[in-house]
Amino acid sequence: MTIETISEQRCFGGVQGFYRHESRETGGTMRFGVYRPPLAKGEQAPVLYYLAGLTCTEETFVIKAGAQRLAAELGLILVTPDTSPRDTGIDGATGDWEFGEAAGFYLDATTPAFAKRFRMYSYVTKELPGVLGEHFVEADLDREGIFGHSMGGHGALTIALKNPDRYRSVSAFAPIVAPSQVPWGQKALARYLGDDAASWRAYDTVALLEDGHTFPGTILADQGYADKFLEVQLQHWRLDAAARTAGQALTLRAHAGYDHSYYFIQTFMEDHLLHHAQALLG
Amino acid sequence: MTIETISEQRCFGGVQGFYRHESRETGGTMRFGVYRPPLAKGEQAPVLYYLAGLTCTEETFVIKAGAQRLAAELGLILVTPDTSPRDTGIDGATGDWEFGEAAGFYLDATTPAFAKRFRMYSYVTKELPGVLGEHFVEADLDREGIFGHSMGGHGALTIALKNPDRYRSVSAFAPIVAPSQVPWGQKALARYLGDDAASWRAYDTVALLEDGHTFPGTILADQGYADKFLEVQLQHWRLDAAARTAGQALTLRAHAGYDHSYYFIQTFMEDHLLHHAQALLG
Repeated sequence: MTIETISEQRCFGGVQGFYRHESRETGGTMRFGVYRPPLAKGEQAPVLYYLAGLTCTEETFVIKAGAQRLAAELGLILVTPDTSPRDTGIDGATGDWEFGEAAGFYLDATTPAFAKRFRMYSYVTKELPGVLGEHFVEADLDREGIFGHSMGGHGALTIALKNPDRYRSVSAFAPIVAPSQVPWGQKALARYLGDDAASWRAYDTVALLEDGHTFPGTILADQGYADKFLEVQLQHWRLDAAARTAGQALTLRAHAGYDHSYYFIQTFMEDHLLHHAQALLG
Repeated sequence: MTIETISEQRCFGGVQGFYRHESRETGGTMRFGVYRPPLAKGEQAPVLYYLAGLTCTEETFVIKAGAQRLAAELGLILVTPDTSPRDTGIDGATGDWEFGEAAGFYLDATTPAFAKRFRMYSYVTKELPGVLGEHFVEADLDREGIFGHSMGGHGALTIALKNPDRYRSVSAFAPIVAPSQVPWGQKALARYLGDDAASWRAYDTVALLEDGHTFPGTILADQGYADKFLEVQLQHWRLDAAARTAGQALTLRAHAGYDHSYYFIQTFMEDHLLHHAQALLG
């Protein structure tokens, strides 16, 4: 499988790159970013995936999160996939920021309209790591962590809970924790998976915890109280309750004054990178 | 004079805001950003102005430079004006990324077409500080520093050299150091100031140094060797030579592999903020 380099730029002694490739899982061109910290020749570093939220792309985190400085210092590779397949031409996949393109919800769709292209779960967990293994010799794929924001926080948490032996660390900023229970999730899950809500549970953090899935490490999650999506879409208290019931180790932090933006994310980025570094480099 | 708040968002314990106001100097609406670090009640902090480059706005630095973290820690107020007046309706002021709107070159134009609106020198040195003094009680306008990138590096250096008693510190990323000698500058200075190149010297760092202007502190400047504008537009060696001849204290650093982007800027942001903090907080 070949990849094409869109750009590579020096940053904090390492390299921030953007790449594209033809994706088997999503049936089209996918773009992703990779930040490689400065490394000695032949040295490898762990891989930390960041999944972005609704409306975002592979560039959002790279430009706005301010993560490269500490990734360079700690020696972490940061990988940022796009949030969905693009240019799908599928009816209903564009024109709504809550659904379709840029809103892939990190699942494998099963409804006829979306099943062929919207396979972000398999893309993130299987195809993209394969691409990294083939093209980035610095990537130590025996040490992977995952985190994300909002829809991407949902992605990171569900992926980690379903693959507890695969990822060593997980965290989230303002995640959608119970998509089955909130408007964003109900719209997306019904269209991607069909009306049988039982099938939604595999892509719902709270439901996964209820159904016996746990993660061996501590989950770190941050939530701002000034986040305009808190009450209707995010509802971190559902994660709090489900983790307590399931016995899942969770560090859940609420912060007065912070909203849903990357000003919030960058403020707590250092805590998240250190959380992952402890598991990935310890 | 009233200002309107566009947005205010919590960031690293402080507040990143964007504002707009009707500008006397530029004859239209101007926007600017202010980052206020966390401060005790009644406490003031020094003001560090950042002037952005061609095509940029008051948002560019705020989103891409990663400066708020250390500004919060050090206690610096960061002020980011836009790069020119907007919606001027002046013939020739749009459609060319090197000239006109988003390319104000931080000067006061004298040609008939541009003299009324393109007054970024007076806006940055007089009107904007006045607005800050009126609306931001935290701003200690007895302690001001200035820095910038590319066209904004040119702005910062020329403004500091012409006001050596006013600003306590100055630095630049990849500045245009001799606009009179390079295509970007020649185009802009001729259109803003007319064909008499003698009038350009007041807005040319190298010419100001040649004409006896110096800055009492050390000028810090960084330049990437992989910057595609280096050879034709930036030519840092002219600053090197002029500072040596003038006896101007200069720390000029060239960096292999770095380009003209904010990946370069963010990499060396900490050094610049510490440079200013030493003068502003020492």
